[in-house]
Amino acid sequence: MEYQAGELLRQITTPSDLRKFKPEQLQQICDELRDFIVDVVSSKGGHFGASLGVVELTVAIHYIFNTPYDQLVWDVGHQAYGHKILTGRREIFHTNRKYKGLSGFPKRAESEYDTFGVGHSSTSISAGLGMAVASKYQEITDKNHIVVIGDGAMTGGLAFEGLNHAGVSNSNLLVILNDNCMSIDPNVGALKEYLTDITTSHTYNKVRDEVWNMLSKLSRFGRSAQEIASKVEKAIKAGVMEKSNFFESLKFRYFGPIDGHDVNYLAKVLEDIKDIPGPKLLHCVTKKGKGYQPAEDGNQTKWHAPGLFNKDTGEIVKVSPKSPQPPKYQDVFGHTIVELAEKNEKIMGITPAMPTGSSLNIMMKAMPDRAFDVGIAEQHAVTFSAGLATQGLKPFCNIYSSFMQRAFDSVIHDVAIQKLPVVFCLDRAGLVGADGATHHGAYDLAYMRCIPNMVISAPMNEKELRNLMYTAQLEKTDVPFVIRYPRGQGVMTDWKTPFQEIQIGQGQRLRTGDDVAILSIGHIGNLAVEACDKLQESGISVAHYDMRFVKPLDELMLQEVFNKFDKVITLEDGCLPGGFGSAILEFMAQNDFKANVKMLGIPDRIVEHGSQNELYSECGYNVDDIINTAKSLVDVKLKSVFA
Amino acid sequence: MEYQAGELLRQITTPSDLRKFKPEQLQQICDELRDFIVDVVSSKGGHFGASLGVVELTVAIHYIFNTPYDQLVWDVGHQAYGHKILTGRREIFHTNRKYKGLSGFPKRAESEYDTFGVGHSSTSISAGLGMAVASKYQEITDKNHIVVIGDGAMTGGLAFEGLNHAGVSNSNLLVILNDNCMSIDPNVGALKEYLTDITTSHTYNKVRDEVWNMLSKLSRFGRSAQEIASKVEKAIKAGVMEKSNFFESLKFRYFGPIDGHDVNYLAKVLEDIKDIPGPKLLHCVTKKGKGYQPAEDGNQTKWHAPGLFNKDTGEIVKVSPKSPQPPKYQDVFGHTIVELAEKNEKIMGITPAMPTGSSLNIMMKAMPDRAFDVGIAEQHAVTFSAGLATQGLKPFCNIYSSFMQRAFDSVIHDVAIQKLPVVFCLDRAGLVGADGATHHGAYDLAYMRCIPNMVISAPMNEKELRNLMYTAQLEKTDVPFVIRYPRGQGVMTDWKTPFQEIQIGQGQRLRTGDDVAILSIGHIGNLAVEACDKLQESGISVAHYDMRFVKPLDELMLQEVFNKFDKVITLEDGCLPGGFGSAILEFMAQNDFKANVKMLGIPDRIVEHGSQNELYSECGYNVDDIINTAKSLVDVKLKSVFA
Repeated sequence: MEYQAGELLRQITTPSDLRKFKPEQLQQICDELRDFIVDVVSSKGGHFGASLGVVELTVAIHYIFNTPYDQLVWDVGHQAYGHKILTGRREIFHTNRKYKGLSGFPKRAESEYDTFGVGHSSTSISAGLGMAVASKYQEITDKNHIVVIGDGAMTGGLAFEGLNHAGVSNSNLLVILNDNCMSIDPNVGALKEYLTDITTSHTYNKVRDEVWNMLSKLSRFGRSAQEIASKVEKAIKAGVMEKSNFFESLKFRYFGPIDGHDVNYLAKVLEDIKDIPGPKLLHCVTKKGKGYQPAEDGNQTKWHAPGLFNKDTGEIVKVSPKSPQPPKYQDVFGHTIVELAEKNEKIMGITPAMPTGSSLNIMMKAMPDRAFDVGIAEQHAVTFSAGLATQGLKPFCNIYSSFMQRAFDSVIHDVAIQKLPVVFCLDRAGLVGADGATHHGAYDLAYMRCIPNMVISAPMNEKELRNLMYTAQLEKTDVPFVIRYPRGQGVMTDWKTPFQEIQIGQGQRLRTGDDVAILSIGHIGNLAVEACDKLQESGISVAHYDMRFVKPLDELMLQEVFNKFDKVITLEDGCLPGGFGSAILEFMAQNDFKANVKMLGIPDRIVEHGSQNELYSECGYNVDDIINTAKSLVDVKLKSVFA
Repeated sequence: MEYQAGELLRQITTPSDLRKFKPEQLQQICDELRDFIVDVVSSKGGHFGASLGVVELTVAIHYIFNTPYDQLVWDVGHQAYGHKILTGRREIFHTNRKYKGLSGFPKRAESEYDTFGVGHSSTSISAGLGMAVASKYQEITDKNHIVVIGDGAMTGGLAFEGLNHAGVSNSNLLVILNDNCMSIDPNVGALKEYLTDITTSHTYNKVRDEVWNMLSKLSRFGRSAQEIASKVEKAIKAGVMEKSNFFESLKFRYFGPIDGHDVNYLAKVLEDIKDIPGPKLLHCVTKKGKGYQPAEDGNQTKWHAPGLFNKDTGEIVKVSPKSPQPPKYQDVFGHTIVELAEKNEKIMGITPAMPTGSSLNIMMKAMPDRAFDVGIAEQHAVTFSAGLATQGLKPFCNIYSSFMQRAFDSVIHDVAIQKLPVVFCLDRAGLVGADGATHHGAYDLAYMRCIPNMVISAPMNEKELRNLMYTAQLEKTDVPFVIRYPRGQGVMTDWKTPFQEIQIGQGQRLRTGDDVAILSIGHIGNLAVEACDKLQESGISVAHYDMRFVKPLDELMLQEVFNKFDKVITLEDGCLPGGFGSAILEFMAQNDFKANVKMLGIPDRIVEHGSQNELYSECGYNVDDIINTAKSLVDVKLKSVFA
C-alpha cells in the first residue's frame, strides 16, 4: 500500500525543509501530518492518540528550533510519530513497529534527531538536563535543549528528581509539559488535579494579572492607599508569588498554560522564550487524539493504540475468529482477582497507571475502594503495597515486567527484607513483540531470583495462573510471591476452572520420556509440548517438566530428572544470564549432578521489535529450535555410543 | 560499661510511661535522652547527628500519639535512636549495630514500634500511606499514621510519588518534614532552596497574614477601595493562594514552619492538628547534632557518624596505626578520578547525595564544574549521566551498590539499551558490616549481569581499581562499565601506581597449582591468597585466578581452567543466585565442561549486621571456609581414586 503525503508535507524530508515555509502554512502542514498519521496507523496499527495530540507541538518545535543541533527529547516516545515523519522517515514510516522496521519509539541508532531512546516514562528531564549541562560545560551557548513530557509522566519520581536538580542548574533547558490529563488511562494524582485547577478555573496568569491590575487602581485613592497597595504587591511578590506555582517552587520559570493546538501561537511563544536563560517550563494544554473526531469524542484509552481501523468511519477492525479463542492472560488476571477478592476481604489491587493494560480496571469498577491506580509510579506502587501488607492485607500489585525494573529496590528493601506477603503479578513478561527493546520483560526471572525470601512462579496456562493467584492469597502464604505471565493470549478457551492450591515449589511432569528432558517455565512451555509431539514422531523420546517455580525449585523433581537424564534442555521466555536455566545449573553444582544442559531463552543482547513469533525464532527458542536442540543432544549421545 | 539514664528517662520503658509525665517535664526528658545517646554513641559508635536533631520531635510524637497503635514510620531510620530508647530498648541500646545486637535502623522484627523497616531513604510516605489507606478500608477511624521524613529524603522520586498519591487519597496521614538542610552531606536541589526560602526570609504564613492585614486596612478608604480590596483578596485566595505552597499544590494541608526543638510547642501543634482529617504536612526546622555543642558548631557531615569520641571534649578518637595502612577504596576512587580528569577533559563525576561517602567530594572541590551532587536521586543520577554521555562526555557515576538497586531501570533503559559509555563505580559492594541488611551490596553482580552490553568488573586491590578506572575512560571503551568495590580498606600502602590499561574481559592467574582451582572476583580474592598459602602448607596445591571481569568472562582462561581442573571453587562477595559463580556454571554448560564446582558467596537469605569478618564467617567464605572447601574437594578426589 502506498501512503500519499499532502502537498506541503511531501516537500518536507527534514526540518530544514519545514523551516522554509511561512507561518501561515503551518496549520496546513499540521493537517497533512495528522492525515498521514491517520492513514498509516489505521492500516498498519501502532500508537495513535498521543501522536495526534502533539502534531502542532511537533511542527512548532521543529519550525522554531534548529534540530538536530538543538537537542529534542521526547518522554515515553509513543507520541513521536509526527517527529519521525518530519525527520527523514516519512517514506518508511509504514514499517513502524514491524520486524526490522522503524521502532515505535525514538531510538538513537535510528536517527540523529532521536537524541535519547525511550519507551519507559519520566526520563526526559534528567536526560535533557544532562545534555544541557554538557553544553554548558563545553561552552556551547547557542544550543537549545527541549524536552516534551506529558502530565502522566510527570508523576513518575524520576521526573521530579530531574526537576529538583534542573531548577538549580542554571542550564539552558526548556521543559514542555504536554498536559492532556491522560496517561494511557486518565491521569491521576494530586499534581494532575493541580494542573487541572490551573487550567480550568482562573488561570494562574490571569489571576496574577487581575491582582496587579486591581492593585494599580488603588492609586486613585490617594497616596496612602497607593502605599498600602504597593506594600501588598511587594509582600505578595516576595512571599507568596514567588512560590505561587508548583514549578516555580522548583525554581523553573513557568509559562502558560497555553493552547497546544494553536500552531502559530505555539511557534510565537517558543520563539519568545527560547533565549531566556535558565530552566523554563512551558505548560501546553492538548487533547489526545486531537483532530480525529472518533478519537476526540470516544474513549481516549481505547484510542491510545486502537489497532487497525477504518479511517473514514472510525470503526475499529475486529477480527472475528471462527472458533472460540483463549483469553488474554491479563483478562484472566482481571477477572480472577475480583473472584478471589469477593471471597477474601484482605485482597487489594494496585496498578501504576495501567488499569486497562493490566485489566485491573475490572476490579476498579467492581470494587472501587479496593483497587488503586497510583499513577506512573512503580516504586510507590510497590512500597505502598508493602504498607498495606503491614496492616494484614493481601495486596496484588500488578506491574509490567519491564516497568518493575523501576521498583527493584522497593521489592528488595520494602518487601523482601521484611518478608511481607505482597503478590506481584508481572504482566508482559518475556518478549512482548512490537513495543520492542524497552518493553521486553526479559530480565525479571534473573533480577527477582537473586532476592531472598521471594517465591517466583510462572503459569503455563490460564488454569495455572488462576491457581497461582489462589495460592498466593492464602492466609498461610506469608512471603512475597511473584507470578509472571506474558503479553497476549493463553491456551485454554474454557479457562474459568475451579481454584486449586498449588504446593509452593512444586513442578509437574507433563510427559515421561527416555532420551532428553525438557525443563520449562511458564507459558513458553507450550512450545515444548508441541516440540515433544513432533520429536516423538521422529522417534525421540522426550520427558517434559513444567517447573512452575523458579524459586523455590522443585528439588525432588530435579533429583528425579538428573538421576535419570544426562541430556537436559531448559526453556524460558527470559534472559539466559542468571535466569531459570542458570538456577538449574546452580542446583546441579550444589548437588554434584553432571549433565549436558542446553539453555534456551533470550540471549545476552538487546532484542529489538517484531512479532513474538519472529522474535522467538530470532532468539532460537521456537518449536523448531527446541526440536533441533533435542536432536543435537541425542546425536551427541549416539556419537558417544558409536565412538 | 554501664550506661546510666537520667532520673526521668530511667522511669520510661515504653511510651505509655512517657505519657504519664507533665508537659513541663518534657524538656528534661529530652535532655536526658540526648545525654544517653551521647553516652552510648561516643563509646560504641553509630549514627549521631540525625538522632540528636529529632530528640524533641521523638519525645513529642510518642507523648501525643498512641504508639504503637498509631503507626509511626521513620524515613531512612538512622535518626531513630531516641525512638528505640523510648520504646523498650534502652537497656540493650549499647548493642546497637553490633553482631546479633540491635539494628541501627528501625526493623519490624525487632519491635512492634518499628512499623516499617528502613535504611534507604524516601520510602516513608508510600509506606505510611499504605497503612493509612488500609485503616480507612478497615474502617478504623481512630488510628493515626505519622511519617517523619527529612528534607534530603524528600528529594527522592519515591517520596514525590507518595505525595502525589497521598494528596488525593483523603487518608489520615501526617507527614512531618524534618528540615535540617542536610542529607549526610548538605542537602541540594531546588526543593531545598525553596524550603530555605520559606524558612529564612519572610515565612509563608507571616506574609500571608500581612497581606490580609494590609488589605483589611484599605476599608478605611471608603466603599470602592474596600470593594477592590475584597476583590483582590478573593482573587488571591482563588487563584494564587491555594497554589501558594509546594505541598499545598499537591493537596496537602501545610503547617509551619515551626521550631523543631521546642518540645512543648511541638506537642501542642501535634495535638492541635492530629484530628484534622486528610493528608497534612508539618514543616519542622531542626538542626542536625542539636544540643551537643561540638556537633552543632562543627562539620555536620563529620558528625553524621563520627565513630568513637570523647563526649566531654568532642575530640574524635583516632586510632594511630603503628604501620602505614592501605587507603579506603573510596579514597582511591576519589583521588584517581581527579588524576584522570586532569588529563581527560571528558570525565565528569556524579554522586546522588554521597560526596563524602564516595569521596567524590575531592573532585567537587578540585573541579566544581565537573562534579555533581544531584541529591538523593539515584535514578536521576544515572539518567543524567546518560544524558551527559550522549554529548560525548565520560561520566563516572558513583553509587553505593545497594542504592544502585533504585536505578536499575535507568541502567537498563537509559544506558545499556543505548550502549552509552557511562562508568558506574559501585562502592560498598558486598557485605558492608554494621549497616546491615538494607545496605549490603549483595545483589549487584546478579542484577547487572543479566543486562546486555555491560562490562562488569571488580578490582582485587587499589592498583587494579586505578587501572580499571583508567581503562573505563579510554576513548575506545564505548560501553557501560561497572567497577564494584567494597566498603573499607584495600591492601596496598603504596597504592598510587602508574596507570595501565587492562584488556576488557581479561583475568589473571595469580598462582598455579594442580589439585584445585579457585576463581575469585574482586577484593575478596585476597582471602583466597591467604587460604592458598595455608593450603600449600598442608600439601594441597591450589591454582588461583582473579577473574577481574564477571562480564565478559575471560573465556580463554576458563578453557585453561576447565581443561585442567575438575575441582573448582568460585569465590565472590556477592549473592550466590545469579552471581559470579553462576556465570561460571553458564560458561561450563555452554562449553560442555564438567567439574565439581563449589560456590562460595552470600547465601540466599537476608544477612543482618555485624563486622565484615563476622559476616564472612557466618556466610561461609572466610579464609578457613575456603581452606575447608578446598580440602573437602580434594577428599572427594582422593575418595574416588581409592574407590
